[in-house]
Formats: sequence, structure tokens, C-alpha cells
Amino acid sequence: MLNKIKYMLVGSPLPNRMLEDKQLNKIRALAAFSPDALSSVAYANQEIYLGLVVAGASGLSLQLPIAGAIILLLAIVALSYAQTIRGYPSGGGSYVVARENLGTIPGLIAGGALLLDYILTAAVSLTAGVAAISSAFPGLWPYRVWLALFLLVLITLLNLRGLKESGTIMSIPIYLFILCYAVMIFYGLYRAVVQGAPAPLSSLAPAAVEPLSLLLIMHAFSAGCTALTGIEAISNGIPSFKTPQWKNARTTLGIMALLMGFLFAGSIGLTQYLGVIAAQQETILSALARTLFGSGPIYYLIQFSTLAVLAVAANTSFAGFPRVTAILAKDKFMPRQLFNLGDRLVFQNGIILLSGLTAALIILFNGDSHALIPLFAVGAFSAFTLSQAGMVIHWYRLKEKGWLIKALINGLGALVTFVALMVIGISKFFEGAWISTLVIPGFVFLFLKIRQHYQAVSKQLSMSGLPPSLRPLPKPRIIIPVSGVHRGVVEAVNFSRSISDSVTAVFIDIDPGPDEEELRRRWNAWFPDVKFVVVPSPYRSIVEPLLTYLDYTDSLNNDGQQAILVLPELIPASPTQEILHNQSADQIKKALLFQRRVNGFQRIIIDVPYHLQ
Amino acid sequence: MLNKIKYMLVGSPLPNRMLEDKQLNKIRALAAFSPDALSSVAYANQEIYLGLVVAGASGLSLQLPIAGAIILLLAIVALSYAQTIRGYPSGGGSYVVARENLGTIPGLIAGGALLLDYILTAAVSLTAGVAAISSAFPGLWPYRVWLALFLLVLITLLNLRGLKESGTIMSIPIYLFILCYAVMIFYGLYRAVVQGAPAPLSSLAPAAVEPLSLLLIMHAFSAGCTALTGIEAISNGIPSFKTPQWKNARTTLGIMALLMGFLFAGSIGLTQYLGVIAAQQETILSALARTLFGSGPIYYLIQFSTLAVLAVAANTSFAGFPRVTAILAKDKFMPRQLFNLGDRLVFQNGIILLSGLTAALIILFNGDSHALIPLFAVGAFSAFTLSQAGMVIHWYRLKEKGWLIKALINGLGALVTFVALMVIGISKFFEGAWISTLVIPGFVFLFLKIRQHYQAVSKQLSMSGLPPSLRPLPKPRIIIPVSGVHRGVVEAVNFSRSISDSVTAVFIDIDPGPDEEELRRRWNAWFPDVKFVVVPSPYRSIVEPLLTYLDYTDSLNNDGQQAILVLPELIPASPTQEILHNQSADQIKKALLFQRRVNGFQRIIIDVPYHLQ
Repeated sequence: MLNKIKYMLVGSPLPNRMLEDKQLNKIRALAAFSPDALSSVAYANQEIYLGLVVAGASGLSLQLPIAGAIILLLAIVALSYAQTIRGYPSGGGSYVVARENLGTIPGLIAGGALLLDYILTAAVSLTAGVAAISSAFPGLWPYRVWLALFLLVLITLLNLRGLKESGTIMSIPIYLFILCYAVMIFYGLYRAVVQGAPAPLSSLAPAAVEPLSLLLIMHAFSAGCTALTGIEAISNGIPSFKTPQWKNARTTLGIMALLMGFLFAGSIGLTQYLGVIAAQQETILSALARTLFGSGPIYYLIQFSTLAVLAVAANTSFAGFPRVTAILAKDKFMPRQLFNLGDRLVFQNGIILLSGLTAALIILFNGDSHALIPLFAVGAFSAFTLSQAGMVIHWYRLKEKGWLIKALINGLGALVTFVALMVIGISKFFEGAWISTLVIPGFVFLFLKIRQHYQAVSKQLSMSGLPPSLRPLPKPRIIIPVSGVHRGVVEAVNFSRSISDSVTAVFIDIDPGPDEEELRRRWNAWFPDVKFVVVPSPYRSIVEPLLTYLDYTDSLNNDGQQAILVLPELIPASPTQEILHNQSADQIKKALLFQRRVNGFQRIIIDVPYHLQ
Repeated sequence: MLNKIKYMLVGSPLPNRMLEDKQLNKIRALAAFSPDALSSVAYANQEIYLGLVVAGASGLSLQLPIAGAIILLLAIVALSYAQTIRGYPSGGGSYVVARENLGTIPGLIAGGALLLDYILTAAVSLTAGVAAISSAFPGLWPYRVWLALFLLVLITLLNLRGLKESGTIMSIPIYLFILCYAVMIFYGLYRAVVQGAPAPLSSLAPAAVEPLSLLLIMHAFSAGCTALTGIEAISNGIPSFKTPQWKNARTTLGIMALLMGFLFAGSIGLTQYLGVIAAQQETILSALARTLFGSGPIYYLIQFSTLAVLAVAANTSFAGFPRVTAILAKDKFMPRQLFNLGDRLVFQNGIILLSGLTAALIILFNGDSHALIPLFAVGAFSAFTLSQAGMVIHWYRLKEKGWLIKALINGLGALVTFVALMVIGISKFFEGAWISTLVIPGFVFLFLKIRQHYQAVSKQLSMSGLPPSLRPLPKPRIIIPVSGVHRGVVEAVNFSRSISDSVTAVFIDIDPGPDEEELRRRWNAWFPDVKFVVVPSPYRSIVEPLLTYLDYTDSLNNDGQQAILVLPELIPASPTQEILHNQSADQIKKALLFQRRVNGFQRIIIDVPYHLQ
């Protein structure tokens, strides 16, 4: 029944051979991996504008230069990752690259940083999407946490169904978004060329309330850097691409970077050239769209596509996070279940884990994306820096043809992302970046602890040290606790007799009286070859006298073996009927759980169930 | 650890031989069984007064006559039960007497009616006690449900400790109550004799607002009848008395009835003779005490003793209810656990059940005793009538010396309690008595269903029909699912080899590759006499391919036996480490729970745990 509900929601299980079929072509891959990166245009623009507008016209005239710096950064990072994809065609996330080239700890830092970033991306995208929807319909605001959680469940289910399905549905918002923005930017460029700038920026901008300081510029730049988060999803997700995997992945990365640069430069350039100023309570992109198209249907379509792309941006995390956890699990830094492919050929445990952590963040931060944003970007830029530094070492070690150029590109990437990381870390430290600087080492500690556990287990399970030829154990002695002579014990007794010649039935007598002799007579009539022992229980407990008796017989037979317990268990036809029975078998099993043998083995209990109708 | 907390709260377990010591002398027995009956003076008086005062002086002049009728009823019922105690010295509650003499259904009606009455007694006493306390301290009123539940937990724990302890502590309020009221009544009588009546009642009573009708008198009488609930607790509790049990029980019943009659007649007689009229928001007993002693310390002591006795009146239910459920459980009409004597030689499950049901009533009725009172008394009087009608048949059957007198006394008892039942049922039907007329048949239905289940089980467990000499099963075939060659499987394999020559290890292969051959080589090196089978799992499930394989091998070996599953199970050192392991063993066990064999037996699973450190 539960399975039916599950199949209805996520589809029926798929065999291994369909793994190939489940892989993504470039169109679907772009839809799966790019929404985070592309949708960040929606808030990065806004953050830069808000950071600069306080310095008036001189501030706003820096919009395009800062955007240029970020696009340069984007180009370097994208180029860097293109090299990584080539160098690590089986999936080269920051974790893999940093670990292989820099060592375990840097690798784990990169891995932990990425995981944090994926969780934050999911939480921020969902809450920002819901916030955007509820700016249009303010009545929804009190339900924002529920709405975000509802969207989260929806995205989780789609991802549990599998990549292809989620790729198809997720394609619609992202391509609508790209189309709308491309139309807007080309129309804006046409207007700019035909009509020219409406007026100098200084005549339109509000008066400065703060001088243009270095810190102000750094802050605006840091805020804009959030645009780059999510860019590395593709290099983690190479195995999801159709073959040739690395080529398709690299092409998709290139297309994504170009689209990002185009959307970012186009929108911010138009904003500055046209001197667009946002009204109170309006986003700068909304102001740009309104300037170009007025408040007609095209404006609303653009707004809607923005909301939709934000809502699906969380999906990038669902494409990336489970892959990182699977790689970490394969290396025994995370629970091994995260490496199991589920029924639908996806890392379902990773999806569920991400979903749970995202839900926790949404609830903890009460559905407020503004409180979450400062935590952002620290993780991504830590991962960028470590991964690109790792690539430098990679090329240096290989020393293949043209390695110096490649090492220089990655070295430049490492340098600029490190500088950006410092700028972000310093300018946003007290706003929330400090949380990230605590959480990432926490993750690393956890990874190491888990690995340590698996190593300890593997040592305990190792066959080394065992004698080369293992002898079977001697024939077991068997003890069967019985509550009387009835059909419920027949199978248990017969089974015991089939595996051993030393079988003893034990009757725990909680109410001494003349009935025992009658019971013994009946027992001997039915099972003459099975010894029948009555153990008195003056305190009316079933469990303790039985345990005492077991220890006693073990001490009599000093063969070093414990007697085996065969438990005849009556199973009622329905759980409600369980309250009508004593469940002594359950009590005995629980009590024995706490009795361990020194060598790691425990008394063997054989449950012989007898089902009632 | 849990056991330590338990021992601290209820004391350490007691052996069977202390059963004799745990039994009650008459002083403690009176304290255990009488608070319900005696404390009812506190509200029965009040209900009669309120019922009659609306008819003015002519109404109030009927107080003593109605009290007289109720005392007559009390005398008949007490006499009747004294005969029952003699006739059923091993515990003759209404259920036993009605069932033996009238048949199963009347017996169950009596049993169900009594159980309902005990639950209501506990709930009404506790809420009435709390209501009384919070009339003195109105700030407590919002917390009445919590207070009532707190008292309930306290009483439950005392009763779980055992009768003697609860007898000792419960003795204090009841004897204080008896002492205070005896002093008050004797002092009142002295005043009445010395000073005479202060003035004719007609000059003191408020004007009539209603004519004195038959219904009004019936209603006042019904309300007063609540005084009789709880009187039968002693006849159920004979086994708790010291030997000679029936004599001690009968003496205690006599003393209780005399005390009740004295308190009831004395207080109501003084009220009428002295023309006491209660002020608004005051009980008639409070008015009587104030008239006699003024508002000094003696008045407050009397009030406090009233509250205390109400609070412990619930204890009567705890003495009676578990005994009735134990008798019903012995006859298989209730779950058999209710017949098990607990660690402290009390029917702990009955105590816990009563506690739970009482808590449910308190919460459901929001701690309001007035809403509960109309449900009351229907149960008690149904039980009285059935039990006494049963006694008539009992004497008629025995026909021992003087049986006719005995039969006449019980017949009279049956008749008057039946008339009282009709009066109560009719006059209170719409106020709540209808609930009782639904619940009692509900109980009877449940009793019959439970009995039916036990009979079905007993039939299924019967050895009749089995061949007289049972043959042991053939040697079992054994299948061991293994995840590799490691120490965790060693004990499982060795154990299997010690009980069977046909052992097969099965490896479920979820990720086909070249590793299988290496695994097979290692397996054969360590366990050359154990067959090693690789079962592919294209859907990556461990459970389903294993089940399929089991069915397949069973079909190959048509010996009519199922292969036995030996499960090597890794047990992590702590529950938090469980999330780091796959728990395949748990999954297999769960899946096989749903696979049943037609004849009631199930595939045998042998768990061989290996504990990790």
C-alpha cells in the first residue's frame, strides 16, 4: 500500500540498464544546472544598485564597471571550470580536485563549503521566490513558510522521479526567462541606439547620502558576487550528461556563462545608460522593464518569468548536492546510503537530506531570504579558490603540452576568487558570513568523524588474524521458553529437534500450584525426547528467571558456548489484537539485546513465529 | 536506569510469599474502600437540599424523609452485600454473582456498569476535590485540569506501590473526616437538645418558586442516591483482607454502612431541625458548620477535611476497578495482562488503565465535575439490581437452612434498587444518564469480542487433531545473505554449518562489475564447504531479489520445507551510528513479516548479531 503511494508520487523503479536513458541532453542539462546562476541576475543587479544608490550619481555611474569586474570574474571562473571538466571528465567538483591535488583537509573544506552553499541556494531561492510572489499578492505573506515548504516538497518529488522528468518540467521557466530577458535587452539596445540616453545620469539620480568610499564599492561588489554561486554545478554533474559527457558538459558550461554575461551586462548596462532609478518598494529590474515597456502585459510577463525562475533555481541544488554527498559517501566521509542509487536511479537519500536541511533553514529563518543572503557566497568562493588552486597543482604534476598556460589560467582564477572571498568575508562578516566560517569547519569535523567510524568498522570486520581454516561450532544446546503445550510451540520444538539433540523446554512458573505436574505429563506425552524444566519465578517476572537459567546452564556446560534460545512467538492477526497478548517473546528479545558477549558475538535467538488468524 | 526510576517511585519488586503480608487489616481496609461512600455525604446532602429548596419550607421539610428513604435503601443494600460476602467469600462482586446466577450477559452488564461507575467515581471525586480547593483559592481554577491530573498521578503511584502503603497514607484524610463530622454532629445534637429549634422552618426558608411535585421529589431522591455508589467495593475486594477474609470484610462493610448512615442522618437531620439555609455560593454543609461553630478554626478544619476526603475518594476506584478487570480478565473478557500481578503484588495494569481512562474523562469534560455527575449512579444501581437478583437465585439453588429469609432480603434489595434505578434513569436521562445507557452495552460488546478472540486463539492452539507422535522436521536448508567476506559473517556461517550440511551464501549484486570473481575467490578460500551464489539486482534492491531467490530454491527442493534464513547483522555501538549503516537485515526481516505460510508458520529467521565497538 505504501509502495503504491510511493510509485504514484515518484514513479515505479527503474533497472540499471536505463541509467544511460536517464541522462540529459544539453537542452535539459542547461535547464537542470543553470537556473541558480541565471536567476541570480534578478537579485545581484538589485544588490549592486542598492549598494551604490546611497552615493548618488557618482555611485550609480559605477554600476557598469562593477558589473564588468564581476563578468570578468565569471569569465575566469568559467574558463577555469572548463579546464576542470576536461581534466576530470568523470565529475570534477571542487571537492575531488582539491582533495586530489591539495590533500584531504582542503578537499573536505571545499566539499563542506559546497554543501553549505547548495543548502543556502535552495533555501534562498525558494524564500526569494515566495517573497516575490507575495509582493504581487500580499495576502500570501503570512503563509510564506508554508508556501516555501510546499514548493520544496514539489521540487523534492520531481527530483525523486528522476533527472529527465525534472529536466523537462524545469525547462519551461528557465527558457521563458531567457526569452523574456533577451527580448527586453535587445529592445532596450535598439531604443538606446535609436533614441540615445534620455538625460545625463547626474540629473536623474537622487542626491548622495554617503560619500563614495572603498568599503561602499567593496560591499556592492560582494553583493554582486552572489551571481556566481551555482556555476560549479555542471562540473559536479558531468555523469548526468549524455556521452560524450565532458564535451557536452563543457559546451553547456560555455553556453551558460555566455548567457549569464549577456543577461547581466545587458540589463545593468541599460540600467545605467538609460539612467533608470527604482521607485520605493520596486526592484531595479522591474523599473527597467517598466521604463522600456510601460505597465502593460509584457511588463507582467517579464515579472512572472523572474518569479518562476527564482522558484526553480532551488533545483540547481537538487542537481548538485546529491552528487557531492554521493562522492563524499563513496570516500566514506558521509553515510554510505548517500551513495546508493534509488529506485529511480537518482541519489534519493541525498535529495531527501537536502530537502530536510532546506526545510530546517526555511523554518529557522522564518521564510526570510534577506536574513539568509549574507551567509551565501562564502561557501561558493571558498570552493572556487580551493578547486582552482588544486587545478594549478594538477597541471604542474601532469606537465602535458601547454600546461603552463592552463596553470596560469587556473592560477589567475584561484587568485581572483581568493581576493573576492576576502572582500566578501570582510565586508559581510558581521551580517552573517561568520556563521559560514563556523559551519564549514563543523562539516569537516563531521566528515572526519564519519570516516574514522568506517575505518574502525572495517578494521573490526577484517578477516586478517583469523585462523586460515575456520571450524564450524559444536552442535548447539537449545533452550525453548514455553508457556504451555499448544500448537504455538510445536514448530519451535520440531525445528529445534531437527538441528540439535540437546533441547530443553523451560516453563517459567509465576503462580506455583498443582498445575505443573499436569503440564509436565502432557509435555512428556507429546515431546518425550525434549527435557522439560520448571523454573519458579517468585517475583512473577518471565524475563529475569529465564536469563538466570540460561547463564546457569551455560556455566554447567563449560564448552565455551552459549545455549541458543528458540522463541516460539504468537503473532496476532492484527496489531490491535496485540494488546490481548503478553508479548513475552518481545520482552525476552529486548532484555537479551543488552547482554553482550565480550568477543562481539551475542547469544543467538531464533524466532519461530506462529501466526494467529 | 529506567528500572531505578521505577523502583524509586513505586518501590522494588516483592516476592509472592509477601502476598499475605500485603493484605489489609480492618482499619486500613476501611480507609481503602470507604472514602467514596463516606465522602458522598459531602455532595448528596447538597444535591438533596438544592433539589428541595425551590419548593420552600414545604420542600425543605422533606429533607429528613428523603434521607430516611436513602438510609433505608443503604441498609437494604448493605445487608444484601453482607449476604453476598458470606455467599462468595473469594470475592463476590456484582459481576461474579450476576454471571453465576443469571447468565453471562447479565454478568457482563453488571461488570460493565461497575467499571463505568469506578471510572466516573475517580473522575468526579478528583474534579470535585479540585473544585472545592479552588473555591477556597480561586486563582487555582484555570489550572484545575492540571491539578486534577497531578492528584491522579499521585494516587496512581501510591496504588502502584501497593495496598498497604496506599492504605496508610489514605487513612489520614478519611479518619480526620470521620472525626470532624462526628464532633460536629454530636455537638449539634447537644445544642439541639439543650437549646431546641431556633425557629419554625417556615419562618426561615425562602419562598417557594415551584410547587412541590412528585418529579421534584424524585429528582431530589435520585440526586441523593449518588451517596450509595462505591458501597460494593468491599465485596469485590475480599481477597485484599487479612484472614478470615470474609468475616473481616463483612465487619468492615457493617462499620462503613453504620458510619455512612450516622453521618448522613446526623448532618441532614441537624440541617432540617436547625433550619439551616445556605447562602449563595455556599454548600449546605458549610452553612451547617458555620451555624454551629461560627467562622473560626473548627469551621476551617471541617472544610479542609471535606476537601481531603473528596480528593482521596478516587482511591476507592483504585481499590475496586483493578479487581473487577482482573476477574474479567481471568474469565477472558478483558486482556489477560489485567490478571497479571505486578512487581508490587498489585494489578498494576488495571491501575494504569483506570488512570488513563480517568485522565481522558477529566480532559474531555475539562475538569468539570457538574457535567460528569448525571452519568453517575446509573452504573452502580444497575450492578446492585443484577447482583441482588442473582443472590436470590443463589439462595434458591442452595436451599440451605433459612434460605427463604436470605432470598427475601436480597429480593427486597433487588426490587428497591431497581425502582431507584428507574427513578434515576428517568429523572436524569437527558442530563447525561443516556450516555451511560450507551456505554454499558458498548462495554458488553467489547467483552464478548475479546472473549471471542481468546476462544479463537485457544482453538488454533489446541493440540487436538495433531498426530499423536510428532516427528522432527528434516535437516534445514540454510541461506545466508552476505555483503562480503568479513568477520561480521563468520559467526553466522559457522553457526549454520553446525546445524546443517546444506548452507548457501547469497550475495545480492546491485552494481555488476569485475569484483564478483574476486569475492567468490576469497569466499571459497575461507568457507570452501559453503556454496556461494551471486544474484544480480538490476533494480538495486537488496530485499526483492533475495525473496525471489528464496522462493526459487524452495521450489527446487520440493520437500515441503522452506529454507531457513540466517542473517548476519552488524550492530553499531550506539544508535546514532546506525544511520551510517544500511540496515539491510532490518529491511529483510520487515519484508518477511508480510510473507506468511498458509498453515500459520512463517519462514524461520535466525539473527546472528555482530557487535561493533
